[in-house]
Amino acid sequence: MRILIKRAAVIARPEEGLIPAADVVVEGRHFAGVLAPGEASGEFDKIIDGEGKLLAPGFVNAHTHLAMTLFRGFAEDLALQDWLEKKIWPAERKLTGEVVYWFALLGLVEMIRTGTTAFADMYFFMEEVGQAVEEAGLRALLSYGIIAPNPERIEPELKRAEGFAREWNGAADGRVRAALSPHAPYTCGPEVWREAVSVAKELRIPIHTHVSETKREVMEHRERYGKTPVQWLEELGVFAVPVLAAHCVWVDEKDIDILAAHNVSVVHCPSSNLKLASGIAPTWAMLQGGVSVAIGTDGAASNNTLDMVREMRLAAILAKAKAEDPRAMPAPEALKSATQRGAQALGWGKDLGVIEEGYVADCVLFDLGTVHFLPGHDPLADLVYTASGADVEMVMVGGEILMEGRELQTLDEEKIVARCRELTRKFR
Amino acid sequence: MRILIKRAAVIARPEEGLIPAADVVVEGRHFAGVLAPGEASGEFDKIIDGEGKLLAPGFVNAHTHLAMTLFRGFAEDLALQDWLEKKIWPAERKLTGEVVYWFALLGLVEMIRTGTTAFADMYFFMEEVGQAVEEAGLRALLSYGIIAPNPERIEPELKRAEGFAREWNGAADGRVRAALSPHAPYTCGPEVWREAVSVAKELRIPIHTHVSETKREVMEHRERYGKTPVQWLEELGVFAVPVLAAHCVWVDEKDIDILAAHNVSVVHCPSSNLKLASGIAPTWAMLQGGVSVAIGTDGAASNNTLDMVREMRLAAILAKAKAEDPRAMPAPEALKSATQRGAQALGWGKDLGVIEEGYVADCVLFDLGTVHFLPGHDPLADLVYTASGADVEMVMVGGEILMEGRELQTLDEEKIVARCRELTRKFR
Repeated sequence: MRILIKRAAVIARPEEGLIPAADVVVEGRHFAGVLAPGEASGEFDKIIDGEGKLLAPGFVNAHTHLAMTLFRGFAEDLALQDWLEKKIWPAERKLTGEVVYWFALLGLVEMIRTGTTAFADMYFFMEEVGQAVEEAGLRALLSYGIIAPNPERIEPELKRAEGFAREWNGAADGRVRAALSPHAPYTCGPEVWREAVSVAKELRIPIHTHVSETKREVMEHRERYGKTPVQWLEELGVFAVPVLAAHCVWVDEKDIDILAAHNVSVVHCPSSNLKLASGIAPTWAMLQGGVSVAIGTDGAASNNTLDMVREMRLAAILAKAKAEDPRAMPAPEALKSATQRGAQALGWGKDLGVIEEGYVADCVLFDLGTVHFLPGHDPLADLVYTASGADVEMVMVGGEILMEGRELQTLDEEKIVARCRELTRKFR
Repeated sequence: MRILIKRAAVIARPEEGLIPAADVVVEGRHFAGVLAPGEASGEFDKIIDGEGKLLAPGFVNAHTHLAMTLFRGFAEDLALQDWLEKKIWPAERKLTGEVVYWFALLGLVEMIRTGTTAFADMYFFMEEVGQAVEEAGLRALLSYGIIAPNPERIEPELKRAEGFAREWNGAADGRVRAALSPHAPYTCGPEVWREAVSVAKELRIPIHTHVSETKREVMEHRERYGKTPVQWLEELGVFAVPVLAAHCVWVDEKDIDILAAHNVSVVHCPSSNLKLASGIAPTWAMLQGGVSVAIGTDGAASNNTLDMVREMRLAAILAKAKAEDPRAMPAPEALKSATQRGAQALGWGKDLGVIEEGYVADCVLFDLGTVHFLPGHDPLADLVYTASGADVEMVMVGGEILMEGRELQTLDEEKIVARCRELTRKFR
């Protein structure tokens, strides 16, 4: 399959700014060239008109709990403990593989519609999530979330997580990879972490976890172990494998040095951190300190969307307030965190995240027809500060078109919506 | 004209939650009833199908600089002083009435498309803005921004502001009202403020200004006058007239008491405050302290949109982080600030902001067809935390339909876009 995206404005690498017009050639799974308009030659199986449109690398949602679309709007404006203990956890006990499968599909529809091409998901019933991802055509790093508050849960939980990882790593033609996910330092003890690291090393897969999300969690960890969660994880040897550390709201300078030294990918989830009143992560200090900061939506229960365009904008403006400097997190950096640094977090850093010959063809096309893109002094800034997920009109993953002209190509949206409505009635 | 909006889910008053299905009758400029489905009787000139849709009061953007759509993306990621002194102010010197007129129209298209029915605008060439508002059909509180750093500017500036107010207050069939706008305590001295108050009293119009936006501004004011801008304005007698105080990021407890005691409407502009690194306003503390807090986008140069749906969501989640309490600014309060409290700020508090018999018919209809509205456990929370401006499909102001089925009814979008493109080329 040879595809030509013709005369689009292109952001190939955020730090290099905008190419006002280019022809982008896709051959099979990869970009085969970014050429001056009219320079692409040969036969094409498909030509996509890019005039008046902006092509960007696909968004990478580096931390979410996909099937929590079921819980969107289910438990609003509550204190964190009530939210978890009275609403979310009891409801999660009622989950079934079937429910997770359909609400994962619902989340995948939402992600495609808002330009996400890859994501990292940690949850339960992950085989069903894997199946949904396989059908949808996205790229994903999937993991079973290990929660082992008491010793007898450790072995079965680890077994389940490891079993999933062994079965699904490399599935869906390589689009699905697996991670190991001890849920957090406060829900898993040293034994779980050590075993997870050993399996991760053997399978050469990353660890995806939650780190230092709330002030209380860090205080309690300090009281219990005499050190911060980041320092504790380092000493346990967890950072010997690639790690996605979601949140990192409450990290100090020493933590930042550790995260940078071990190439940990921090995943900033600004909406969720604000909505649950967890705080504001020092993303610009982390980036300045050499930490790779990706962006995630977290689950739809605490966001309440899976829209990375919205999340990128929030990450950009929130970083300025946190750093008390409007020059912090300029637009190209925010876009890089929402794309390339996400790809790196998921372990695809060498293969995707930019639009360049040889890279895997994951990209999204924005329709610049909405009035908010005028006057267009700086389309890259418009993409970060102005664009809406609803402006996305074409999505491609590995050369496969998942949406074109806002029509989904791989999923039956009507059927998914109907099934989710049915299951919602039952769930209530 | 008699219009029926049939079987829509309705939020009549945010604090009363959702009416799952109702028939809403509009007669002339007013709502004539919110009835059980099927109960509306008589002849209708028009029936709007509300099935699968959500009707809410129109959004009120209580602080913006409309024609700054011209400067969207023009000066990004700069320090505040560079932003103003090197980019925005020099560019504003090149403005003409023609440019302001067309970019005001562009902003009006954007506002209609994202559900705004009324707004407060302070800028220059306000006659042209008034003309644009008259054509668009929105409701607006308009004012010329007085900047008088040296004594000889005082009289001509005041004259201009007063002239505009006398001419335009009550124009466009009452849809346009005027305010007086000394720009801020740091750009206008006591003489300007006293004169503005006297004119405002005579014309019975409000004062719309910027208050305590940055830390530096408040520090300098303290150094110069020995008190905060809020305390200083109170002593000058400014709060004897209704006041819209934009920003109020840096207010202390005493300031909050003063604002509450004088019924000042604070206008929270979260995107702009984050993007310019001004800080985070204590909105929940103000609401708890009895201050009416409305929401505004500020100008498109520092937002970079005029989308109140986006701004409402940010106001809701940011308030929780600022208050360190996820229960702060629950969804109904955020919606109220984006609608009713905005109407009150603009001086229309008794006439609009709710959907109820006798109130002026300003309302918006959201299409719930986008997947992010599933599963729909709490449509009011979905509206605040999930919805996008792109979900708005019908907008009505005073019984007049400004957009239906996402088609603009009063403005020629194509012509406006073409003119703005032309003017942008010239401006560069």
